[in-house]
Amino acid sequence: MKAVIISIGDEVLIGQVTNTNAAFLGRELFSLGIPAARTVTVADNEKDILKEFRNAYRDFEVILVTGGLGPTHDDITKKCVVKFFKTEYRLDDKVLKHVKSIFARRRVPMPLINISQALVPDNSIVLENIAGTAPGILIDKGGKIFCVMPGVPGEMKYISKNGLFPYLKKKYAGKLKNVIRQKTLHTIGIGESLLASRIGDISKLVNKGKDYELKLAFLPSNYEVRLRITAIAKSPAKAAALINGAEKIIRKSAGKYIYGDDERSIEATLGTMLKKRRLTISAAESCTGGLILSKLTDIPGSSDYLMDGIVSYADKAKVRLLGVNPRDIKKYGAVSKTVAIQMAKGIRKRSGTNIGISATGIAGPGGARKNKPVGLVWIGYSDKKVTFAKDFIFTKDRLRNKDAMAKMALEVVRRQLLSIEQ
Amino acid sequence: MKAVIISIGDEVLIGQVTNTNAAFLGRELFSLGIPAARTVTVADNEKDILKEFRNAYRDFEVILVTGGLGPTHDDITKKCVVKFFKTEYRLDDKVLKHVKSIFARRRVPMPLINISQALVPDNSIVLENIAGTAPGILIDKGGKIFCVMPGVPGEMKYISKNGLFPYLKKKYAGKLKNVIRQKTLHTIGIGESLLASRIGDISKLVNKGKDYELKLAFLPSNYEVRLRITAIAKSPAKAAALINGAEKIIRKSAGKYIYGDDERSIEATLGTMLKKRRLTISAAESCTGGLILSKLTDIPGSSDYLMDGIVSYADKAKVRLLGVNPRDIKKYGAVSKTVAIQMAKGIRKRSGTNIGISATGIAGPGGARKNKPVGLVWIGYSDKKVTFAKDFIFTKDRLRNKDAMAKMALEVVRRQLLSIEQ
Repeated sequence: MKAVIISIGDEVLIGQVTNTNAAFLGRELFSLGIPAARTVTVADNEKDILKEFRNAYRDFEVILVTGGLGPTHDDITKKCVVKFFKTEYRLDDKVLKHVKSIFARRRVPMPLINISQALVPDNSIVLENIAGTAPGILIDKGGKIFCVMPGVPGEMKYISKNGLFPYLKKKYAGKLKNVIRQKTLHTIGIGESLLASRIGDISKLVNKGKDYELKLAFLPSNYEVRLRITAIAKSPAKAAALINGAEKIIRKSAGKYIYGDDERSIEATLGTMLKKRRLTISAAESCTGGLILSKLTDIPGSSDYLMDGIVSYADKAKVRLLGVNPRDIKKYGAVSKTVAIQMAKGIRKRSGTNIGISATGIAGPGGARKNKPVGLVWIGYSDKKVTFAKDFIFTKDRLRNKDAMAKMALEVVRRQLLSIEQ
Repeated sequence: MKAVIISIGDEVLIGQVTNTNAAFLGRELFSLGIPAARTVTVADNEKDILKEFRNAYRDFEVILVTGGLGPTHDDITKKCVVKFFKTEYRLDDKVLKHVKSIFARRRVPMPLINISQALVPDNSIVLENIAGTAPGILIDKGGKIFCVMPGVPGEMKYISKNGLFPYLKKKYAGKLKNVIRQKTLHTIGIGESLLASRIGDISKLVNKGKDYELKLAFLPSNYEVRLRITAIAKSPAKAAALINGAEKIIRKSAGKYIYGDDERSIEATLGTMLKKRRLTISAAESCTGGLILSKLTDIPGSSDYLMDGIVSYADKAKVRLLGVNPRDIKKYGAVSKTVAIQMAKGIRKRSGTNIGISATGIAGPGGARKNKPVGLVWIGYSDKKVTFAKDFIFTKDRLRNKDAMAKMALEVVRRQLLSIEQ
């Protein structure tokens, strides 16, 4: 059982957009046990699109198409689908209602052109897209699945998770030769190669048997490394056993850095911990400029543990809003252990929360001082019992630094709550 | 003259790696005037690779291949090239010396397997790769260019910039029929279809003449839409004239929404404006939870105009930190024009900045009230002369809402500074 992914759009071909959709779908198809054997990108051009449709339909069982479903003239994917399947359009009332509701919500008149978004191939199943106007279109014909989705990643992901993947799972349940199981261990604060050397000889994990296969992949992204364990076996039980074996070995050598066993972010993981423990938190940010607070509030229901926070970018603000001692700023510099500690304690007391965290550092590109390179950050932590600060050095890139510093601040709290040594 | 990009590697197909190489090469080929009409990714599998080589050689003049050049057994691209061109290997001394030097520098003995990196197809031109062990391989045969490069982005880019592109420029100098020029107009706060209907009959712009072509592409991303104008003409002068003509028409109908004529973000655009005008800004955030401040501080040198800011997530915090009247919160609700105005005025006065902005809304998924749907936000603006608040309604998705709300807050300031009606 093989799949193909077809991306449609000039903007992808000329590199104005990087094709993250193919990566997402490739990953998901693989874990479904229907690996993609090929991905293709073609222009918004009828001849090329129809040619790819023909080849795909000849060679593969599952054909996923993204892009070219917008209401504007340059989007022709749907037209090509109708042509390819020699079918007609039908007006889908549910979709039309949804499209209208989107414009109603925005309180703007709906341009007539958007009615076309509710026209779907007559032989298709409509997959809901709450995130946008173009629905997913699934055609299950001749033992083959043909699915078209918008190119906007958020919309494509929504339709995949809520419409396409459940459909594929149901359709192919029990019919696939191999069972593929994956588990991801999510680490933070340690580099890929260090992690690899800690885990050691992964040939112990990656050992290919005749009837099964176990793989360990290192997926780094700015001071987070996801360890993806993949087991391919004949039975779910065997696959599960392989995964558990691998996880044990990894946790033994790198457990401290593993904050989750899924794709959840550190802010989601920490949020759950704070809720469970009925703890409140506040943050005082300098170099991270609001990103710690923004990450915390990315989580629905974060108002249970976060009431407020301060961005004290300038020295004066650290004094006025957090009660940092100006003499200490003069003496040790704003990027210092002392100031980080005073910021953390200050925000905790002023906000009246159980926990206060702070970050003061040099995001770059400018601002480096003697013994204080770009990428240096002091992260402060304060609760009723303990107050401390810890320093880290990240990259030379401003945005990567802000992100890594904010994530580490949250990780420091996680380790403290679990009394893992910092 | 058309090109194709072939990426080889299982890790790309199963989405462990996002294919940024295709985006880079697509961009560069386009600006060279040799646009890629197709990109394909296939597995490290001889049959599939040879099939792609055949199709590519039949349909395209320039064939670029990346990946599968490592020294390990699973990398078979070079073997396929030799097979495809029915040629032999030769040992390239220069490459061998380079490979040896790399290991010498690392002070580790060279694994014998790496000698294979110096074996190149007999009919090929070697393109130097100082960044790694696998050289680029270029075959110029039958009026077609066939080039193979490593999949590691850094190495691929080095070989492209220093070997491949110069070769292509030299070979096709003057021979390319068309000049391609592009310009991107960056809009915010208006949907794709509304924008399209405002710009109106784009056939006026997209008018394909015999000897030239003018295209307008809509590239949406969460309430920003980039308008990409592409002109393909016989001369640079003609192309430039076409672009200017198109830009004039677009600006006439949608100028209000265009905040930049490049790929710069709204925070970068606003930052430059604030610096030029020597203005300072501060933000009071509720629903955006710090994202406005984080975006502002994403810009190097933002400390020139941003000193501090407040995240007042809870009602109490709005009262304590910004002086919002608790009776008004009771009467109108925290998500209201009155509260947004008091937040903006409050942060401006307490921070002593020229401008204060605020955002109070419902990011979702929960929190909707009667007449206050998820996605609703009140954005407050306050300076010495003017104070007002404006409401917007975005999506049902929390993260997209936070991002769109934060961007709109910055856009409201941009429009105010340019006295564009809100």
